[in-house]
Amino acid sequence: MSPDFTQGLAELAVCVGANVQVDQDVVVLAYDVEQAPLVRALAERAYGHGARFVSALYWDSHVKRSRLRHAPDETLDFVPDWWKAMIAECVVRGSAVILVYGQADRDLLDDIAPERVARDAMPMTPLFWEAVDRGDLAWTVVPGPCAGVAQAMLGTPDVARLWELLAPMLRLDAADPQLAWREHMARLLERAALLHERHFYALHFRGGGTDLTIGLLAGARWVTAATETRWGTPFVCNMPTEEVFTTPDRRCTEGVVRITRPLQLARGGRAEELTLYFERGCVVRVEARRGAEFVRAQLAIDSGAVRLGEVALVDGASPVGQTGIVFGDGLIDENATSHIAWGEAIASTMPDLPEGRDAQISLGFNRSAIHQDAMIGGPDVEVSGVDQNGVEVAVITADHWVLT
Amino acid sequence: MSPDFTQGLAELAVCVGANVQVDQDVVVLAYDVEQAPLVRALAERAYGHGARFVSALYWDSHVKRSRLRHAPDETLDFVPDWWKAMIAECVVRGSAVILVYGQADRDLLDDIAPERVARDAMPMTPLFWEAVDRGDLAWTVVPGPCAGVAQAMLGTPDVARLWELLAPMLRLDAADPQLAWREHMARLLERAALLHERHFYALHFRGGGTDLTIGLLAGARWVTAATETRWGTPFVCNMPTEEVFTTPDRRCTEGVVRITRPLQLARGGRAEELTLYFERGCVVRVEARRGAEFVRAQLAIDSGAVRLGEVALVDGASPVGQTGIVFGDGLIDENATSHIAWGEAIASTMPDLPEGRDAQISLGFNRSAIHQDAMIGGPDVEVSGVDQNGVEVAVITADHWVLT
Repeated sequence: MSPDFTQGLAELAVCVGANVQVDQDVVVLAYDVEQAPLVRALAERAYGHGARFVSALYWDSHVKRSRLRHAPDETLDFVPDWWKAMIAECVVRGSAVILVYGQADRDLLDDIAPERVARDAMPMTPLFWEAVDRGDLAWTVVPGPCAGVAQAMLGTPDVARLWELLAPMLRLDAADPQLAWREHMARLLERAALLHERHFYALHFRGGGTDLTIGLLAGARWVTAATETRWGTPFVCNMPTEEVFTTPDRRCTEGVVRITRPLQLARGGRAEELTLYFERGCVVRVEARRGAEFVRAQLAIDSGAVRLGEVALVDGASPVGQTGIVFGDGLIDENATSHIAWGEAIASTMPDLPEGRDAQISLGFNRSAIHQDAMIGGPDVEVSGVDQNGVEVAVITADHWVLT
Repeated sequence: MSPDFTQGLAELAVCVGANVQVDQDVVVLAYDVEQAPLVRALAERAYGHGARFVSALYWDSHVKRSRLRHAPDETLDFVPDWWKAMIAECVVRGSAVILVYGQADRDLLDDIAPERVARDAMPMTPLFWEAVDRGDLAWTVVPGPCAGVAQAMLGTPDVARLWELLAPMLRLDAADPQLAWREHMARLLERAALLHERHFYALHFRGGGTDLTIGLLAGARWVTAATETRWGTPFVCNMPTEEVFTTPDRRCTEGVVRITRPLQLARGGRAEELTLYFERGCVVRVEARRGAEFVRAQLAIDSGAVRLGEVALVDGASPVGQTGIVFGDGLIDENATSHIAWGEAIASTMPDLPEGRDAQISLGFNRSAIHQDAMIGGPDVEVSGVDQNGVEVAVITADHWVLT
């Protein structure tokens, strides 16, 4: 019997991920038309759980490619009114948004000028992330297995094999997946609590070509993907999720970091064997075997793009890490190992974040139109916390969580 | 070599159908995710011809089915803000809209209560048809061949066979398809001119169980699918198209009519072997071997739904008629034979249509939230024009156009 966890994932995404409420509106956005079976299962579950109206949208990367091939430069930051209206409607109605993630054609934009790729923010425009930041909607990202995505991730269009690999990451193989998720999130919360108690001043990543110190933002909490809307409805914004994360001080990252997995850039393009050099919080040099120019174009989007907005800790014991597979997909790979993100910082880490962009930035909280996760952990990379006296405490050693 | 006219149809739809202009925005709406290859070809051609931004949308009927299965009655006429915004944006920007038509799963709503099906206008809401009526956008409907649509139309998922059948209807097999379309539309315009010269007072359909007299609206022109926007850009709103049509007087249809092809209803549901009885313009009785209740629910949508909004003449010599195949698809079948539509009348037939719904209705011009085409012609059905003295002139005899 070939495994197909479409129904199980739909149930989890609706009940735990987006936590769809009675009378709530839902937007399902898929990244590939081949993901229709999961989209339909999500809609069926959402309506079954009392959703009022479900909008199903399919983003077509091939159409984006045509835009980037042909449309004049000055039109590339245009976002259609209806797309803005869709996000505004989510905010007004307090909707739940379910993103069905996974790209079949990773090379689709490889022959487009990187500056053009970096200009086109569709579909995940800053408007969406601003709504997320304010807690104005519930949202979750789930993988969307289909032949094209399996081909991209595994080198074979074997969807059943992809489901086999995803099931333990998503706790879909548990007797009671929702219970398994509650237990899992409780364990991650314990890690967050341990880190909180230590009040680390900085994190130090060392080994395998990396020697990076990330100063942490004063007042930022360690949190998990379990968060809540402005009105207090809990949801889990990523499935799978294995991370505990916090916010760096945008001014205080120093050193060199090797990105340990291939990178799909948020607006398109890929990078491999990427190394970044930081000075006083800023990326000052980019090296890569492939795609350095896409990274440089992304870092040039705005003044916050070159500074860190997130640091997340994951050890190799996670079900994703245990597969030993590099999926080349942000949603999956970021749960295999520790990572950073340059660009927009995450408001849910800061209980007392002041209003206003300038106030946030002068506090050290980074703001940008992009948020790019990048994996930096691995067996060679020791992670330690640094206290205010410069004393280091091991957190992850030989890819195992050791902080207690 | 298996025929694939995807690129050819995309070119025709962009250049002749929607007639996309430099700097114009384009919305492509497909009725099935399997139609992605045509959607992508349309986007590539539209951008190639200078389009500014192309929105590609895929309507998912399975998600609609979930809505109709679960959502409360009182929510079923809800239309999301973003959908209204999309149509409003088309109006503001004078966009071109390309509908990629064809339904794979015709039975999808068969087990839903017909009153619920009739309440849900998504995706082609009255807002869209109002914009069409005002000439506020350019639009065209083209078939979207894919395995599911081939299965529904031909009983086999043979897409190559479907393209083979569609190619002559779409003039895609011509040496110069755009020239072939210009010649074809000129021939249809000649038919419209012949009918115009006669100033028929009514049309009479008789034979094969039908005996229907349709009084024509004073002042209404005979027109073709070649029309133009408010600002004078020509476009062809259906591909294929074989019809010349005009507007009945909403008060003046009498008799019985047999619908000669199976019917896919605009908001979902099917009807077969349908017979309608008219008195003083209104449907007063509905009989069908299958789906009568879907038709009745549709006719109950508003006070205009039971009255005619269009009558169109097509003879059996059309390339669609020549196939001898009943496709069970409105876009194709309506070009095989003469048809009527109940519901909304078509403003482009009335050069001096007064503003305001009430004024239009008292003139005899029908208004409704729906527009349902239904085929009434065939080899047994004689069509004649009736002058003001009741004298009949043959227009279509034995399925051949005879009016000269």
